[in-house]
Amino acid sequence: MANISIIGSGNMGQAIAAVATRGNHDVQVLQHSDNDVAVTGDIVVLAVPHTAVEEILALRGDSLAGKVVVDITNPVDFTTMDSLVVAADSSKAAEIAAALPDAKVVKAFNTNFASTLAEGTVGPLDTTVLIAGDDDDAKSALTEVLTSGGLKAIDAGALKRARELEAIGFLQISLAAREKLAWTEGFGVIH
Amino acid sequence: MANISIIGSGNMGQAIAAVATRGNHDVQVLQHSDNDVAVTGDIVVLAVPHTAVEEILALRGDSLAGKVVVDITNPVDFTTMDSLVVAADSSKAAEIAAALPDAKVVKAFNTNFASTLAEGTVGPLDTTVLIAGDDDDAKSALTEVLTSGGLKAIDAGALKRARELEAIGFLQISLAAREKLAWTEGFGVIH
Repeated sequence: MANISIIGSGNMGQAIAAVATRGNHDVQVLQHSDNDVAVTGDIVVLAVPHTAVEEILALRGDSLAGKVVVDITNPVDFTTMDSLVVAADSSKAAEIAAALPDAKVVKAFNTNFASTLAEGTVGPLDTTVLIAGDDDDAKSALTEVLTSGGLKAIDAGALKRARELEAIGFLQISLAAREKLAWTEGFGVIH
Repeated sequence: MANISIIGSGNMGQAIAAVATRGNHDVQVLQHSDNDVAVTGDIVVLAVPHTAVEEILALRGDSLAGKVVVDITNPVDFTTMDSLVVAADSSKAAEIAAALPDAKVVKAFNTNFASTLAEGTVGPLDTTVLIAGDDDDAKSALTEVLTSGGLKAIDAGALKRARELEAIGFLQISLAAREKLAWTEGFGVIH
């Protein structure tokens, strides 16, 4: 059984909490009003919009050393919906990893809409979470949580691949925003 | 009925030809030995590896003016399988569009493995082709060919979105190369 802290209680935070609870893991959900509550999990999910990450790292960065830190963000420029706000050759995950050199940062969940995590399915497919990161043990620990909670997972490679995951998440959001697909649909993986 | 020329007779060229033939369109397939044969189609698919594009543009660029030119490439650095060979803020499609200012360049097919085009399905899903481009009529013409041939299509936005499509294609190829999924599987779209 894993101990998981989820920072953020929006749609994504709630859906990820539901998955971990289905897998019988210990789940701590921290809202904005819990800023003075210590993180207890060994796996910490930053289930917040990209614009809130900086504040959380400033507040909790030191306490995340040694932990698996999961970045779920899609760093979309929401004013234009036409680009990401990170450098073209980088990713939000890479920025977080640089800010947390003592944590094991992985990218996950950003290619999954919340409802597909909560339901465990996307159309006729089981929901698959793509995970990128440089620490194999960290990826394995998160994979165990996901599979015990009824999802599938694929190791998408090194943290460098977060750039491609963020491109997928961005395109999926832009297609939903343009009503080419529904927020309950989107990309799936046949594997 | 559309007139389609496909430059390249590999797996992708054959699969795209099969789709167009299923839709009862006129299909011309040009192999490398046909370099002196004129392109007759109004839609021209560059069904070749990214490394062969430069030679084709040098040979046939002038004859592509006014036509819909479909870039299917994944500009992967095949020596490392760890990056694309195009600039981080660009795409192979953007490079081709710059080289062919009088053509209507669209990006398509690069997120589909050949077998999923030939079969019309990927797992339990109908195969969906994501199309990016700046000319709506060009995207509509290609969409008509695809849907008449039994596939689905989504307008993925402006040609700028080719960058995200190339990221998807790259990640899909890298997952197949690492045996995380089969070359008959991969990403699908629920919509």
